This record gives sequence, structure tokens and C-alpha cells, in this order.
Amino acid sequence: MQQILDYIKTNEQRFLDELFELLRIPSVSADSKYKQDVARAAEFIKTKLIEAGADKVEVCPTAGHPIVYGEKIIDPKKPTVVVYGHYDVQPADPVNLWTTPPFEPVVRNGKIYARGSCDDKGQVYMHIKAFELMMRTNSLPCNVRFMIEGEEEVGSANLGDWIKANKSRLTGDIILISDTSIVANDIPSIEAGLRGLSYVEVEVTGPNRDLHSGVYGGAVANPIQVLCEMIASMKDENQHITIPGFYDKVLELSKTEREDLNRTPFDLDEYKKDLGVEDVRGEKGYTTLERTGIRPTLELNGIWGGYTGEGSKTVLPSKAFAKISMRLVPNQSSDEITKLFADHFKKIAPKSVKVEVRPHHGGEPVVTPTDSVAFKAASMAMEQTFGKKPIPTRGGGSIPIVALFEKELGLKSVLMGFGLDSDLIHSPNENYGLFNFYKGIETIPLFFKNFVELNGK
Amino acid sequence: MQQILDYIKTNEQRFLDELFELLRIPSVSADSKYKQDVARAAEFIKTKLIEAGADKVEVCPTAGHPIVYGEKIIDPKKPTVVVYGHYDVQPADPVNLWTTPPFEPVVRNGKIYARGSCDDKGQVYMHIKAFELMMRTNSLPCNVRFMIEGEEEVGSANLGDWIKANKSRLTGDIILISDTSIVANDIPSIEAGLRGLSYVEVEVTGPNRDLHSGVYGGAVANPIQVLCEMIASMKDENQHITIPGFYDKVLELSKTEREDLNRTPFDLDEYKKDLGVEDVRGEKGYTTLERTGIRPTLELNGIWGGYTGEGSKTVLPSKAFAKISMRLVPNQSSDEITKLFADHFKKIAPKSVKVEVRPHHGGEPVVTPTDSVAFKAASMAMEQTFGKKPIPTRGGGSIPIVALFEKELGLKSVLMGFGLDSDLIHSPNENYGLFNFYKGIETIPLFFKNFVELNGK
Repeated sequence: MQQILDYIKTNEQRFLDELFELLRIPSVSADSKYKQDVARAAEFIKTKLIEAGADKVEVCPTAGHPIVYGEKIIDPKKPTVVVYGHYDVQPADPVNLWTTPPFEPVVRNGKIYARGSCDDKGQVYMHIKAFELMMRTNSLPCNVRFMIEGEEEVGSANLGDWIKANKSRLTGDIILISDTSIVANDIPSIEAGLRGLSYVEVEVTGPNRDLHSGVYGGAVANPIQVLCEMIASMKDENQHITIPGFYDKVLELSKTEREDLNRTPFDLDEYKKDLGVEDVRGEKGYTTLERTGIRPTLELNGIWGGYTGEGSKTVLPSKAFAKISMRLVPNQSSDEITKLFADHFKKIAPKSVKVEVRPHHGGEPVVTPTDSVAFKAASMAMEQTFGKKPIPTRGGGSIPIVALFEKELGLKSVLMGFGLDSDLIHSPNENYGLFNFYKGIETIPLFFKNFVELNGK
Repeated sequence: MQQILDYIKTNEQRFLDELFELLRIPSVSADSKYKQDVARAAEFIKTKLIEAGADKVEVCPTAGHPIVYGEKIIDPKKPTVVVYGHYDVQPADPVNLWTTPPFEPVVRNGKIYARGSCDDKGQVYMHIKAFELMMRTNSLPCNVRFMIEGEEEVGSANLGDWIKANKSRLTGDIILISDTSIVANDIPSIEAGLRGLSYVEVEVTGPNRDLHSGVYGGAVANPIQVLCEMIASMKDENQHITIPGFYDKVLELSKTEREDLNRTPFDLDEYKKDLGVEDVRGEKGYTTLERTGIRPTLELNGIWGGYTGEGSKTVLPSKAFAKISMRLVPNQSSDEITKLFADHFKKIAPKSVKVEVRPHHGGEPVVTPTDSVAFKAASMAMEQTFGKKPIPTRGGGSIPIVALFEKELGLKSVLMGFGLDSDLIHSPNENYGLFNFYKGIETIPLFFKNFVELNGK
């Protein structure tokens, strides 16, 4: 333990400088104009894995952005930890709401501000530096493989194919992922479940061209109006989603499980104050923790149509669009829900418009068993570094690849993340605490140690 | 009459070349980045009025874009026609839907394609050339004043003040405006009524920042969802607007008046085919002609919020916006309706969001008496040039300044426009027929002649 702390102390500034270098690369996977930057970020990860001591490091091309692979096999008889993470980031817009530019990292009040600082470059880099630490201090207790991808923020479309093609070199015992949050810096926690995702884009077409709203208004279906009506109809007054069959496969938790979940420290007044809202809004009969953890949702991520510029234009537009995502819980299936959505959306469209539903990407919900060796190893490691036993939580976000790893590689994942819900990931001013960054580097080697010891190898 | 046709024939190409020059100036009043271009368009109008023989021509500055004034007083005892028009145009976006660039006019299939070709540069220019014709052929039978403004497409915000300050030089007998349409090239018509306008922009704010939809979705009001619900609630299943008091002052037409109106040639199947829609959609109990002519409307002109770029982003946005316009009929008042809307919008907002309503601009509905001297003069002129008596129609669009002229100058307006509903004004590929352009130049001098004769002066 002291060895770990000493190594971090000595290399503190360098670790941060290197992370800043990575954060300066605008590796936005969703936007094709950043393709070269995404490639640069992959090369950076490769270089740093090699420098840290990994073997067989390779930037593996895919139909989309590449996956960086590397490994250190010290003894085939020892357990193997497969570290997964992603070096791509969310788009930074609206850029004008950032206090400092999204790709010019700075430290303010003990926090690193930059797009990707927490999600997931900062957390991936903890793993690379923890690996370097174990290599340099001769304390790596087992084998390790790295699999750092560049398409997590756009649904990991090409990871599945790559995994299928590389099954032979992806053998291991556990997947370790840091892409989630703890409750607070003094309340460590580990994600014991993650929701799945179904993401669609819809297009509503009214007339075949933009019209003058004075000449045609009132007589022709306005696609914005119709889209709004369709969206509004998808939730009832209890904020229940009205898509037929949507809840059919939802796993209802037992009374005890719900009680356990609601034991997570949570202050509704603080929550409302932090968000600047007078009231929360969600499914009737469930607490906020349940609404964001164990219940499926339907959220509007974007909407556009007609004239959105300065001033006014009296147009009756031809088209309106929306991006809609649904978070799924066990045992909902992403493909099934996407189909239910598409069928319903087409069914409720009035004859005066045409609609199209384009599925973007999806992912299956997962639950990590809290009695597994890996979960215990993570729990012990956090207790050792935070001085407090972490609580198991149910995360609202989705890491679709967790279900993929289980299906293709037969490997469970442990979700030992170090972010905070206040890190503004996916928002302007994303940040990541220096405390959290270094605490991660400190905790990861202990996970490796605990995992090997608990495995009895 | 032959003199008119001869002059047009001789100068045909020059008239068109000059109009093209005007159309090349992107005088988009709504967008401040075109401010210099709007000013250039005003200078162009000034030059052409001087060349045609007008006196006291002046580009009059306002708090916004300037107004071009010019006059020719041949005899104070003779009637005075005040010609109104506008040299500003609608924004051209979405520019990618134009077959040829919006500010590079071309003639295809007998039509001039360019932003403003019909609305209203093409129609304004008919007046300048008709004036030139009357001057050069010594046939101007009365006095004329020109008042060509640059803010019609953004609500003529500064015209009222300018008129008040210039009342003494704006004396006259009638306002003549060409900014409307005829039914078809073989079915001439004159607008006998115009709807008013109330235009607002609304803003709905949920949380105080963009959030991750996985972490917060399902628990916090999504401003897009709420905006959609609010918009959807503003019309009932009969497409009746639900704002309390909205219809209170609507002037209901008599059975005979409605029958007259519905006598306008109209083919619903052709209408649907032209727009590419399977069905129309409008207020129950009214025909399409009534819905667009004598009934008030509420139309969504634009909506935006959240992520609207390429790919997907799982954001729960802080804000959502919409631009909404309401067309008004006698005896609704623009200010009253704007207030009813704002009050209602605020009232129906759930506690979990904050809303703001920003009025853009408005205008009062007007009716032009068909038994007036001016209407008769226009009707006779059209009959002379089209060979067919024009039918009186009720226009859906709004020219808010018509009510202003009546109030401030005590002058009625005659709406003798030459466009077609298929001219795609406010849309990509706006166009104006060469037939219509030259027919306007031919008809206007006859209006002047008839107006003087019918006045018996």
C-alpha cells in the first residue's frame, strides 16, 4: 500500500500532464469530422500502453473507429483481468456554455475540466497508470489485457464483430470497467446493475415542401404539431409509458430489494436544489432512486424542425425530427423495445403525415452479482483506499457492451467507477476530481491483488 | 393599352435584367449578418425610382432597416396613389433544398427562381417599371408616392413610427399593394381580406444544465417532452384551438358569405396531390378554403432543443424552444391574442419547468370592401388585361401594415397581387412567373387610369 502511494506521489504531475495530452485530442466519435482525432487518440493510448510495459499492443481497425489492444501475460496459470474502457468522447456542444474550452483541459477547485475528463478518458488513464505502477514496482499479481475502444459514445457498433473475431486472445476471468460513478467522495459505491438502451431517431413528414404558414396553415398537417402530439401521447398522466407491451418483461424487484436500494443516501431537496427545479417528475409509485435505477424510461434527447434561427419565419415545415432514447431494465430486450416503439409510432401517426423510425443503437440491461469474487475484490479494494465499505447501487446509465461480453466471452464485468454524478458528463463543463483520478490509480492495484488472493491462485 | 404593350415589349429584357440585379442582393431582414445587403437593396430601389422619374427620393433611416420614399406629384388636385411594398426577403434556409442558389436568379420553364422573386421584390419591381412606363409615355394620370420598406418579413417593427413622423407627406387616396396571389393565371382574383398575426417564441427550462439522460432520465422533467405536451394540448381532437377566449371575438361569416367564398375554384384532390399528402388536417366543420381564409390558426413554425447533430447523444437537455404563429381574423386583436396565449402557456406549465413567452411581432386582420372605388378600379384593370373578371378571395397570409395604414393615415388598401400559391414563397425554390411579372406591369397603369376615372377627377 505504501509502495502504491509513494509511486503515485512521485509521478503525480506526470500522470496529470499525460492525461491532459489525451484530453486535448477532440476524439468525438459521433461526428465524422473528428475521424482523424479519434485515430490520434487511439495512437496515444497505444504509445502509453507500450511505455507502461504492455506487450502485443495494436491499434485494431474496425468498420468504424479502431480498438486498442494490449496485454501482459506473466503466467498462463494465473487469473487474467480484462480491462475495458473507451477513448472516444461525447460531442462538446453547446460549446458556448463551457467556462473554458472543452478540449483545453484545466484544473479549477481540484477538478479537471474537459470533455472526456471523467467519461471515459480520465478513468481509462487511471488503469494505464495503475498498470505502469504495478509493472515498475514489480507487483503485477496476474495477467492483464486491455481493450480500449473508440465507439462507446455511439453504441459500440463494431466491438461485437471484433470480439467475435478475437475470441482466442480475449480469454480471461473478469472484465474490469471504470466508466461509472460513486455516490460521493466519502460514500464509495459499486454499480451492481446497469440499464440497457434503445435509441431511435424519428422523422415526421407533412407536406412535400416547406409552405407559407399563412397560405396553408390550418389546412395541412404541421409535422411539428403532429410530432409533439405523438410524443405527448407516449406518456400518461402518471408518467407511465404508453407503448403497448413496453413493461411486459420488466423485472419487478421484491419489497426487500427496493428497501435496500432506497437505503442509498439521497436528499430530494438537495437534488432539486442542485438541478434548480421546483419539482421532480417521474413515474408514479416510485422514488427518484428507483426511477433512475430499476425502472425503464423514455427520454427526448433532441428535437428539431422548421425555422430555428434568429427572428421569425412564417413557415409550415415539411419535416420534423426527434431523437428518443429508452433506458431498459432486466429483462427487457433492446431489439424488442425498439420494435415495439417503431410499431407503435407508425400506428399512432395520423394519415396526414408519413413517419420513419431509424434505430441508432442499443444495449441490453445487466445485473452484476454482488456475491461474486470480482465484486468482493472490488469492494475490499475500495474499503482499503476509502476507509469505508462501498455500497452496491443500481446505475441509470447504460454500458451496452457488458451484456455483449457476457454473451460472446462468457465473462462477467465488475463496474468499479470513480466518477461523481455531478461530473457533468455529456454536458458542458464536464469535470473529474483530482481526488478521484488518483484514488482510482490507488485502488486498481488493490483490486488485482484481492482478485488473485480471493481466487486462491 | 397598345402603348403599354409596346413599351413592355421594347424593354422586356432590361426589366428582367434589372430585377435580377435586385434579386442578387441577399436582403434577409431577419438575420443581422445581412444588414449591409439590406441597405444595398434600399439603395438599389432608390436609384431605380430616380431613374424612372420620381422626385424627392430618399432612403429614410429607421431604428431597423430603412424605408425608401419617392413621389411624383403632377397636380395636387388629382388623386394620389400610395404604392407600398418591401424589398427585404425571408431567410433562404434550408439552402440545400434549392435547385439553384437562392440569390443567383435564373429563368426555368418560364419562371424566375430566386428568394424574393415573388415576395416581394418581383412585385415591387413591377410597380417601379409601371411607373417608368407611365412617365416615359406621358400617361401618368395622377399623383403617386412610393413607400418601400425593408422589414416586412420581420413584422414591420419601425414602419409605424416612421409613418407617424411622416404623416404630412403621406397624404393620398388609396394604398396599392402587390404582395398577394391570384388563384391561377387564367383565374385572376383580388384579396378582399387578410388575416392578422401574432408570433411568439417560447422557451421551456427544465434542469439548470444539460444532464445525462441515463443518470437523470425518468426522474427530472425533460423540457422537450413538456413542450410537446403543452403544444399538443393546445388543439383538441377537432383541431380547435384550446386557448381560453381564443375564438371569442372571431367574426362568423353568414351562410351566404361562406357559400360565396366556397365558390372559388378549388380541387381538394389536386391540392393533396400537389402537397404530397394523403389527407388534409384542419378545424372540423370548415372547408380548406375557409380554414385558410376566414378561420384563425395556430401553427408551429419551428422547434428545437437538445442534441440535433449527427449520430446520438444521450442528453436530457436543459431547454427546449418553439416558434409559434397564430393567424387572426376579424375582429381578433393581435395584442389580445398574444396575451391570451402567454397567459395560457404559463398556466398549463407543470411546476417542474419554467417557461417564458417572447412576443415577436403581430398585425391586425383586415377586410377590404369590394364595393369601394379602388377595388373596382383594380377589378376593371385585371379584367382588361386577363380578359376575365377577377374573383374576390380571402387570403390566409397577413400584411400587418394594412391595418396600420388605416389607423395612422386613414387610408384603405387595395391588394392587387400577381403571385400564385405555387410560387413557394418562404420556401426553397421560390419563383415568380415571367407571365405574372409582365402582366403586373401591364395591369398597374390601367389601375391608375381606372382609379382616376372612377373618382371623376
